[in-house]
Amino acid sequence: MKNLKLNGLVAATHSPFKADGSVNYAVVEQQAAGLLKNKINFAFINGTTGESHSLTLEERKKLAARWLAATKGTKLKVIVHVGSNCVEDSRALSAHAQKIGAVAVAALSPSYFKPRHVGVLVDCCARIADGAPELPFYYYDIPALTGVSLSMPDFLAQGRAKIPNLAGIKWTNPDLFTFQLCLNAHPDMDLPWGNDEFLLAGLALGAKGAVGSTYNFGAPIYHRLIKALGRGDLATARVDQHRSCLLVKTLAGQPYGYMGAAKAVMGMLGIPVGPARLPNLSPTPEQVQQLRAELEAIGFFSWTK
Amino acid sequence: MKNLKLNGLVAATHSPFKADGSVNYAVVEQQAAGLLKNKINFAFINGTTGESHSLTLEERKKLAARWLAATKGTKLKVIVHVGSNCVEDSRALSAHAQKIGAVAVAALSPSYFKPRHVGVLVDCCARIADGAPELPFYYYDIPALTGVSLSMPDFLAQGRAKIPNLAGIKWTNPDLFTFQLCLNAHPDMDLPWGNDEFLLAGLALGAKGAVGSTYNFGAPIYHRLIKALGRGDLATARVDQHRSCLLVKTLAGQPYGYMGAAKAVMGMLGIPVGPARLPNLSPTPEQVQQLRAELEAIGFFSWTK
Amino acid sequence: MKNLKLNGLVAATHSPFKADGSVNYAVVEQQAAGLLKNKINFAFINGTTGESHSLTLEERKKLAARWLAATKGTKLKVIVHVGSNCVEDSRALSAHAQKIGAVAVAALSPSYFKPRHVGVLVDCCARIADGAPELPFYYYDIPALTGVSLSMPDFLAQGRAKIPNLAGIKWTNPDLFTFQLCLNAHPDMDLPWGNDEFLLAGLALGAKGAVGSTYNFGAPIYHRLIKALGRGDLATARVDQHRSCLLVKTLAGQPYGYMGAAKAVMGMLGIPVGPARLPNLSPTPEQVQQLRAELEAIGFFSWTK
Amino acid sequence: MKNLKLNGLVAATHSPFKADGSVNYAVVEQQAAGLLKNKINFAFINGTTGESHSLTLEERKKLAARWLAATKGTKLKVIVHVGSNCVEDSRALSAHAQKIGAVAVAALSPSYFKPRHVGVLVDCCARIADGAPELPFYYYDIPALTGVSLSMPDFLAQGRAKIPNLAGIKWTNPDLFTFQLCLNAHPDMDLPWGNDEFLLAGLALGAKGAVGSTYNFGAPIYHRLIKALGRGDLATARVDQHRSCLLVKTLAGQPYGYMGAAKAVMGMLGIPVGPARLPNLSPTPEQVQQLRAELEAIGFFSWTK
Repeated sequence: MKNLKLNGLVAATHSPFKADGSVNYAVVEQQAAGLLKNKINFAFINGTTGESHSLTLEERKKLAARWLAATKGTKLKVIVHVGSNCVEDSRALSAHAQKIGAVAVAALSPSYFKPRHVGVLVDCCARIADGAPELPFYYYDIPALTGVSLSMPDFLAQGRAKIPNLAGIKWTNPDLFTFQLCLNAHPDMDLPWGNDEFLLAGLALGAKGAVGSTYNFGAPIYHRLIKALGRGDLATARVDQHRSCLLVKTLAGQPYGYMGAAKAVMGMLGIPVGPARLPNLSPTPEQVQQLRAELEAIGFFSWTK
Repeated sequence: MKNLKLNGLVAATHSPFKADGSVNYAVVEQQAAGLLKNKINFAFINGTTGESHSLTLEERKKLAARWLAATKGTKLKVIVHVGSNCVEDSRALSAHAQKIGAVAVAALSPSYFKPRHVGVLVDCCARIADGAPELPFYYYDIPALTGVSLSMPDFLAQGRAKIPNLAGIKWTNPDLFTFQLCLNAHPDMDLPWGNDEFLLAGLALGAKGAVGSTYNFGAPIYHRLIKALGRGDLATARVDQHRSCLLVKTLAGQPYGYMGAAKAVMGMLGIPVGPARLPNLSPTPEQVQQLRAELEAIGFFSWTK
Repeated sequence: MKNLKLNGLVAATHSPFKADGSVNYAVVEQQAAGLLKNKINFAFINGTTGESHSLTLEERKKLAARWLAATKGTKLKVIVHVGSNCVEDSRALSAHAQKIGAVAVAALSPSYFKPRHVGVLVDCCARIADGAPELPFYYYDIPALTGVSLSMPDFLAQGRAKIPNLAGIKWTNPDLFTFQLCLNAHPDMDLPWGNDEFLLAGLALGAKGAVGSTYNFGAPIYHRLIKALGRGDLATARVDQHRSCLLVKTLAGQPYGYMGAAKAVMGMLGIPVGPARLPNLSPTPEQVQQLRAELEAIGFFSWTK
Repeated sequence: MKNLKLNGLVAATHSPFKADGSVNYAVVEQQAAGLLKNKINFAFINGTTGESHSLTLEERKKLAARWLAATKGTKLKVIVHVGSNCVEDSRALSAHAQKIGAVAVAALSPSYFKPRHVGVLVDCCARIADGAPELPFYYYDIPALTGVSLSMPDFLAQGRAKIPNLAGIKWTNPDLFTFQLCLNAHPDMDLPWGNDEFLLAGLALGAKGAVGSTYNFGAPIYHRLIKALGRGDLATARVDQHRSCLLVKTLAGQPYGYMGAAKAVMGMLGIPVGPARLPNLSPTPEQVQQLRAELEAIGFFSWTK
């Protein structure tokens, strides 16, 4: 299990809600089926896309258990994100993930109180990772949302000594300079790329896998991109990467924000993950129609057929 | 109850931990006694000083219940902070606070996902405040830690229409310009001051109450300051305010940070609130001795006799 | 001269431009007369309010010379701001200011390239101050605009050893904590307050003088405030401080920004300082009428009669 | 001239200083010869690497004239950077650049006063570009240093209507998302890449040219990288890109900073560009020896033979 590598596309899944805001667990099976149909081998659940910070501890556990049940016997493997402001909650979620059969856990940093230096972040991760000692542990670096911007080369250097099951970093960080430093200094570590809209840049620099939300609904775009790059056809790869940019631009440009827009796209594709929870916003039915029109105008539905 | 005003000093209390990191509920009685001895009339529990983001939901409830039990029949009233990233958790904590007899609830903003505009913040607060409809609700504005920096004049204007029990803002924000705008535009709202080290500035501009962590261990300094200002003796008030600055400078200047240092001071005063939880750090015994020496050198123990 | 203290109100003056954008030197005499009429004893010229960063070196010299000529024999003394990104330009301006008879020079930090630490800032200031060795030198701390946020207690401690003519800091910094630390650790240093909209807070904490742009057109408000505080009448002082807030709110709230609005107010008062230079914006004639109406609505013209 | 494209490597050159801090104009010929030897076709002078913000207006003009004289009749073409806080200075430098025969001008945004929105930035650039109407004009986007972070897609859309000689953007911005949006929406615009340490990412996404400081002393690394990418050999390209990262890491990691370290490297290569000006720092002779040893240890001198 220590040799797991999150190669290829990893979908960061949404948490499905009903109109009244409660969790709609029954949608998980549809989400899993959708990913399998799109040749996605890994689901990264309860992460940022999964609105984990807006879920209660019990909801996170129940969702994780449902995902493991829904994917049992399939090719789809489940990584459970356990990060939160409360290290003890994260540790409990980590232990739970191991118990139910996840293939890995990942955690972002506490971000209300922020680690003062890399050593504190390592200590937090060690405590969390120790809850699931048999699973690979990924640190999830996403400074734009946590405000925690510590040196990842230093994290790997210190972390590998103190976290026996450290497997790598989910790299949702635009810093391509330190990405290369980490890749080269720690070739055994796995650094799945977390910036969908410039995946091509990450792959060119040496990334092997990618975790993101647009792989839930735009996988064909990225499969083509990866195939084109594999045969040295940068021109084609760029065309699909630009499509990804137009898609993200369209979603992020909505007045209610990216999260609600992305969940609405899932609904358009027949997977009713429902609205977002506060403080994220959701579109009105009129806004969904408007979004659909914008997506048609850029060609989204033809790119992903 | 709607007419509650948090006038005077409000102590933002620490959460007591044992050496193994578990909550040390038995210390709550000592904390309450210490506040009463220092003529503090309000305890603001489970806030930033209370490391609420590092507590589990159950621990927050148990601590709140313990505080209400410990203060029953005394002059010390309890405000329960219920803010968290998860609005549903906040709402549940809010309902719990009302049930156990708190005099008010307060909540900071979700900060991993951030409200896109004031209207979203109002919606979040409305949902939380609605969990305790019979209690006054305070928004806790602390942009340095949440990264949520929205217009408080706009919040009050919109919030009073949508949150029936809105009582005011705990103002842990260095912006003295908008503080005055809020004070004057909403004279019925209560805006307790959250910046201990320049309380004198807040009082000069019209603040009536103050919530802070140094009131746990430095109350005499501030009682003198308030009394001096009351008789127009600015020179004396400044002397004590400068003492407060030296105290904060000493605590914040420790390599393990303000939280661990402040908790160590409580220990020096005979109230063993123990270490901090990760990602906050705690001093070693040697560091505690060093801190004590620094506090003696500035005169802290004589200021607070 | 080393004993100069910038007590009382110091007006940070505007640079007058013609409609074609060239400097309108002839207005300087009117500005000086206006300040004298309003019992202002110091003019701080070519600073932020003076759009110094948008002036050429020659224009800065000619403006400074004009101010010295215009104030000769009057009670109005002139402090010349010489800060810029280019330390050599600042040094040349400093030498020029001494030659023409300024009473002091002040300089903000280079801000494109930023000093890496306090020691570098001290070295920059030493080089600039050495251009005018007979004049008191003020460091002008304005982190909101320079992005240079270094410890002012450290600056004073290191600066007094390396800058023989260091006189103090123009404190355009909202940090009231370190303001007190500086005041108390360096009682011989002069720390004029640079935040007009909470001058009352600065005075309460011990400030003696104040440098700002609203003293050009709102001096009566602040003279009343200072007088009220002097007789211990905080309630009246607060009323005028709140007026200052309403004034600043009105000016800063215009779509073309504070600078253009403040210059338009000067025009309304009969001192035609003209438009602002790019990248600052200026109001259209219609916008000036709208601004005048808003100022009338808050009562500005009656406060300053 | 409107069809100029800054393809290939463009060296952002240093400004040479003597030990006393004055400009050492005589070194320009050596710099030019060094670039020609390294098959660099464009020199971008008086930019960030050229410490333009620390130069006086006259020095900028004299340096520009010297570069044009030194490159006359050679293959090396000169782009003059004219950006500054003072738009009028920038316009004067622009006119001067055209008069002396530069092939293009470029300007960053004023950054003390910051444009409030894209329209203001366009107006500033229009005024500057109009000083050299016969030359292509590049906006130089470098938000990390200016703090001006405006939408480049919007800038191109609005700028092409108002700036007749707009040629493109020097893209010293880590945002690979909007880079792709600009490339695709404005295929006639030239967007030379300004991030040396991830040039490979920029090229993969479609960049054609690159402006940077490491091309002064590390050109062979990048020539190999470009050649490898051209033949589809990503593995080799990555090796050289990682070398570039190690180089930048070594230079930026010095206590005196990147600028002084980069200038010291030039000295090691026989081109004595001298120390940096304040607020940039320069190494002591001992520090230069230490830097040389670190560069030898990573293999720098063998990579660039």
